[in-house]
Amino acid sequence: MPASPIRKLVPYAEQAKKKGIKVYHLNIGQPDIEMPKEAIEAIQNLNLNILEYSHSAGNESYRKKLAEYYQDYGIQLDPAYNILVTTGGSEAITIALMSCMDPGDEIIVPEPLYANYNGFAIASDVIVKPITSGIENGFALPGIVAFEKLITPKTKAILICNPNNPTGYLYSKTELEALRDLALKHDLFIIADEVYRDFVYDGKEHISLLNIAGLEKHAIVIDSVSKRFSMCGARIGTLISYNKEFMLIALKFAQARLSPPSLGQLVAESALRADDAYFNEVNREYLSRRNLMVALLNQIDGVYCPTPGGAFYTIARLPIDDCDKFCQWLLESFSYHNETVMLAPATGFYSTKGLGKNEVRIAYVLNQTDPDSCYKMHSGSLEGLSGKTN
Amino acid sequence: MPASPIRKLVPYAEQAKKKGIKVYHLNIGQPDIEMPKEAIEAIQNLNLNILEYSHSAGNESYRKKLAEYYQDYGIQLDPAYNILVTTGGSEAITIALMSCMDPGDEIIVPEPLYANYNGFAIASDVIVKPITSGIENGFALPGIVAFEKLITPKTKAILICNPNNPTGYLYSKTELEALRDLALKHDLFIIADEVYRDFVYDGKEHISLLNIAGLEKHAIVIDSVSKRFSMCGARIGTLISYNKEFMLIALKFAQARLSPPSLGQLVAESALRADDAYFNEVNREYLSRRNLMVALLNQIDGVYCPTPGGAFYTIARLPIDDCDKFCQWLLESFSYHNETVMLAPATGFYSTKGLGKNEVRIAYVLNQTDPDSCYKMHSGSLEGLSGKTN
Repeated sequence: MPASPIRKLVPYAEQAKKKGIKVYHLNIGQPDIEMPKEAIEAIQNLNLNILEYSHSAGNESYRKKLAEYYQDYGIQLDPAYNILVTTGGSEAITIALMSCMDPGDEIIVPEPLYANYNGFAIASDVIVKPITSGIENGFALPGIVAFEKLITPKTKAILICNPNNPTGYLYSKTELEALRDLALKHDLFIIADEVYRDFVYDGKEHISLLNIAGLEKHAIVIDSVSKRFSMCGARIGTLISYNKEFMLIALKFAQARLSPPSLGQLVAESALRADDAYFNEVNREYLSRRNLMVALLNQIDGVYCPTPGGAFYTIARLPIDDCDKFCQWLLESFSYHNETVMLAPATGFYSTKGLGKNEVRIAYVLNQTDPDSCYKMHSGSLEGLSGKTN
Repeated sequence: MPASPIRKLVPYAEQAKKKGIKVYHLNIGQPDIEMPKEAIEAIQNLNLNILEYSHSAGNESYRKKLAEYYQDYGIQLDPAYNILVTTGGSEAITIALMSCMDPGDEIIVPEPLYANYNGFAIASDVIVKPITSGIENGFALPGIVAFEKLITPKTKAILICNPNNPTGYLYSKTELEALRDLALKHDLFIIADEVYRDFVYDGKEHISLLNIAGLEKHAIVIDSVSKRFSMCGARIGTLISYNKEFMLIALKFAQARLSPPSLGQLVAESALRADDAYFNEVNREYLSRRNLMVALLNQIDGVYCPTPGGAFYTIARLPIDDCDKFCQWLLESFSYHNETVMLAPATGFYSTKGLGKNEVRIAYVLNQTDPDSCYKMHSGSLEGLSGKTN
């Protein structure tokens, strides 16, 4: 695996910090939002004398609560057969790839794409076939004809991220139904990474792949508490499918690695009790960050930033010809009031060589007034980050 | 992957429980020993508002403490280059296999072997070549000639578990040096799973592969806090090597999955402060369980149980011709004072078909006086298991 464009920038960020320049990390999806109070309290109340393995598919009580959570979205899941708790969304994707594909098989993924998909594909020995989406129409799903051109006898699956990381694009029901028809025609799995499902704006609605009729055998959904509840470090994800044959294979991979983390599961189960008020405030906060970012970026001559419908990322086009050099320059040579930003060169999100050179990904994960601090959801009740996680 | 012999027994264990029969689980290495008080207190004192990703290689502070821990064993490690924190020993093995082998490569493993090695090998698309060790000499390392017969151009590594699960065998320095000479002769990696390193008895000493001179390029060590500190559910393991090229590849796989669990790392770091008194008491307890088990088993006509030098397992030979049926019978038809035991059929630990039919693995993980309860290390100070992990 080649080093990613972001990782190549890390030494420059460290140098900038050594020079006393404050670097704001807009290059990574590590939200500064507090966890729901239910999760914070669950951590404070943990009391165990032995940390036992959980069930390989995850604690039964947590799977039951997850089934209730999805029920609120009109999705009926059997916690005994349709839900597998994983070590983050990362493991959910890896297990999904290994369970529905053989070594050498191909998976079609719209690009720009979440760069780690390449790593999971290498680990699973499957080949990513990118299909390019364009900034000019906000990174909408490429036409089905373009997909069909890529299909070979080795093609086993299509992978989408919805809402999308890195583009923030929210797929429409029409787009998902077009993918459904394609998958059924060619008997392909569709893997939908829906870890940003709760971050949608402008009154739009997230349509889960599980809400699309006719995909019972073909739909695989990846989920995680990492972004939803600001619990990236819990490493608790979910793999969901109605396809029992697929889930039984997935369970075998899950059994081989014994169990997902016990402490993270306990906290995640409590976090599921978070009420609408939490998400409403989180979404209000992200919406306001997004609006500020999109408005200010588009005021700059030669800059174009589409308005992302979900998640907390955008891909913006800049008047530059080499985003890797530009992002390095921001760290190495630029500062304003002794501050600068670290952005992600978009080249890292394209599998097709040469694309994305005039684009960057910006994660709007820092708050507007005091981007150096944790954004407090429950003012007065908390003392800020203990710093223990780093 | 076929269902393991243990998993096939699960429905029978459930039926026995439904009939009101108490089933003692000697089939799984889930210790009933309490964590060190440092870990218990660390869990009680957790207080975080955001659960952030850790460094992909694990928290720097934890890696530094790990380096200090290994220093006590005469092993000098650089926390920046030689140590990678993983999601349990399971992930350490998977990353190790993916980082030093290509799809289709072969790895030689003495059998009986930890059954999940087969799962990790399938996930990594490598082929396990078993080499049989025998109960008559306590499952000592097979002769080097036998190893050489198995070596092909596809052979890239040898995997040992020391002390061994499932046999409890503790490899001698002479055996490790013979493996070293073989590895250097054929340029093979040796992967040593040393997760039971702290459980050795009868005044014997565990020799780490890292203590064997000349293996700087070839030694890979797997470690974990799961058994050492009764923290199986923390999912915190370690991958160690002096081979920087190998570690850089391993780090890339680690970066793809983002980070190991944050909460588990915090607790594991505290657990490292446990003093010798903790391990002395734990070892005294296991030694006494082992002695009772070995003595009583060998009193039975036709039963032979070698004396394991480490870990908390033994493979015993019984006067039976089908251990799968026997273990099922123990659950289905046998009870004594309304109690029975669940054992692991040894067939699950052999890759060579037909072997192990008159053997079982017994984990001596339950205490002798009240095997139904948690074994308390610090009497009076604790209230027993909260049960929250299940």
